[in-house]
Amino acid sequence: MELFFLGTGSGVPSKERNVSSLVLRLLEERGTTWVFDCGEGTQQQILNTNIRPRRIEVIFITHLHGDHIYGLPGLLSSRSFQGGETPVTVYGPRGLKDYIDISLELSGTHLRYPLYIEEVEEGELFEDEQFIVEAVKLEHGLESYGYILKEKDQLGELQPEKLKALGVKPGPIYQKIKNQPRTVLEDGRVIRREDVIGPAKKGRKVAILGDTRYLPHLEEVLKDSDVLVHEATFAGDEEKMAYDYFHSTVKQAATLAEKANVGELILNHVSSRYQGDSVEELLEEAQNIFPNTTIAYDFYQHPIKRI
Amino acid sequence: MELFFLGTGSGVPSKERNVSSLVLRLLEERGTTWVFDCGEGTQQQILNTNIRPRRIEVIFITHLHGDHIYGLPGLLSSRSFQGGETPVTVYGPRGLKDYIDISLELSGTHLRYPLYIEEVEEGELFEDEQFIVEAVKLEHGLESYGYILKEKDQLGELQPEKLKALGVKPGPIYQKIKNQPRTVLEDGRVIRREDVIGPAKKGRKVAILGDTRYLPHLEEVLKDSDVLVHEATFAGDEEKMAYDYFHSTVKQAATLAEKANVGELILNHVSSRYQGDSVEELLEEAQNIFPNTTIAYDFYQHPIKRI
Ligand SMILES: [Zn+2]
Ligand SMILES: [Zn+2]
Repeated sequence: MELFFLGTGSGVPSKERNVSSLVLRLLEERGTTWVFDCGEGTQQQILNTNIRPRRIEVIFITHLHGDHIYGLPGLLSSRSFQGGETPVTVYGPRGLKDYIDISLELSGTHLRYPLYIEEVEEGELFEDEQFIVEAVKLEHGLESYGYILKEKDQLGELQPEKLKALGVKPGPIYQKIKNQPRTVLEDGRVIRREDVIGPAKKGRKVAILGDTRYLPHLEEVLKDSDVLVHEATFAGDEEKMAYDYFHSTVKQAATLAEKANVGELILNHVSSRYQGDSVEELLEEAQNIFPNTTIAYDFYQHPIKRI
Repeated sequence: MELFFLGTGSGVPSKERNVSSLVLRLLEERGTTWVFDCGEGTQQQILNTNIRPRRIEVIFITHLHGDHIYGLPGLLSSRSFQGGETPVTVYGPRGLKDYIDISLELSGTHLRYPLYIEEVEEGELFEDEQFIVEAVKLEHGLESYGYILKEKDQLGELQPEKLKALGVKPGPIYQKIKNQPRTVLEDGRVIRREDVIGPAKKGRKVAILGDTRYLPHLEEVLKDSDVLVHEATFAGDEEKMAYDYFHSTVKQAATLAEKANVGELILNHVSSRYQGDSVEELLEEAQNIFPNTTIAYDFYQHPIKRI
């Protein structure tokens, strides 16, 4: 599980930071990639990485501002052109379906893979064997969401030495023993899975928020996240500006991370008014409140380890 | 007058060639910039140039394929964000207005300058003091146009030595003499403009075509263009492929340039299957038919001189 930041700027692209997009690579977990927001030029950013569009499984759109969606029709089209065949589901606010459908239709684009577009409301979006994903409402002038990914706890590893001690020789039987709570051996003995596996692997919790004003009440839903990705459009002393423009300051993001007791905070959506040293200052401001903070930059890769 | 190629690829962006966009700088002529097509990432390409979005006056869209329009909403939005205030007119095929209006509306984008969207048909688009611009229909599966710009002939330069010989001293009177056919001096003498100016400056003719099959009948409308910009998606021996996909080969483009007796041919919309040496081969194929051929690349600048 790895975050790969493709665009970490705010509003308009600059030479240093492209408009918003962030990839969550789940290659080990499910062999696929999830994308969060897709500003213009996301597919061009991808050309400079080893990310493969055909692996994209889900795209989450936080809100419909241009710097978060104008790269979507192009990415979807190119994925088809490049031979992507597996289905893609796009989640996002109301209006997303019209935007995508009309862009593809007017440009005469016919995708060669199934595309599902789901307009979301606050609450659970889906649950499968590995993840529960839910949307939380933010405050950004127009409908904006954060996405919270809860990985389910997973079985521990099979402990071969314990099996050997029980006289069970390695073979296909090992997989069987892992797959079911009780396994009857040929000699009639019953092996209980819990006796031969290590401790469960705790699922991770990752929260990726869209543009938003500071919302202290998010503390609860973000509680104990391993990683929180939060926008930081403005410096700490620009609270009024942040409020007026429906954004957050670095201090507000750090305060929320601190209150919610998250493991790590990664800041993105940095205004182009901050460059070089002043980005360092933003980082210090945040770290004074929440030490384990990083400010993302384009092409920054951040592994999310199990604790 | 200068052509500045921003994207010279075909269909999908590659590391070498972005999707289609071409700028015609008319800085000397009218202090503005005209844009032809606007694929995704055009605004990011512009960041690496000295082109200023606020100078954009007209955008011509040849057809609505994604690689020619997906950068339009972003460029229009960013131009507003960056303080562009002068009006912009966008010309293009039917459907263009819906595409732009819906993209801007759903993304909550409010431009701070007047935007006019004109859906075109074959024929004259506009005429002003400097230019007559017309659209010609191409063949590309969906509605596609070429744009032909005819610069009007301009008055020659005032010849100071002739005026001095007539005893007219330098001053504001010189401008007056240039501005009208006959000027009466204070001493009652009449100066005829034609006696004191040099030869007229011949207007240039520039043809910029969208994606198209080879259309020999365009010879007439392209006749004697100073510059023809033509797509060259395929190598010379791929005529069947070109026909099937509604594109042209380099040889077809060169043949048309030769027949129409244009001054220069610039090829763009090159498929990413051609790289390095094979681009050289394309160039040779074209030059064997029409020697004055160039294959454009991203950021290629080409001045259009008066003959
Ligand atoms: Zn934003
Ligand atoms: Zn094209």
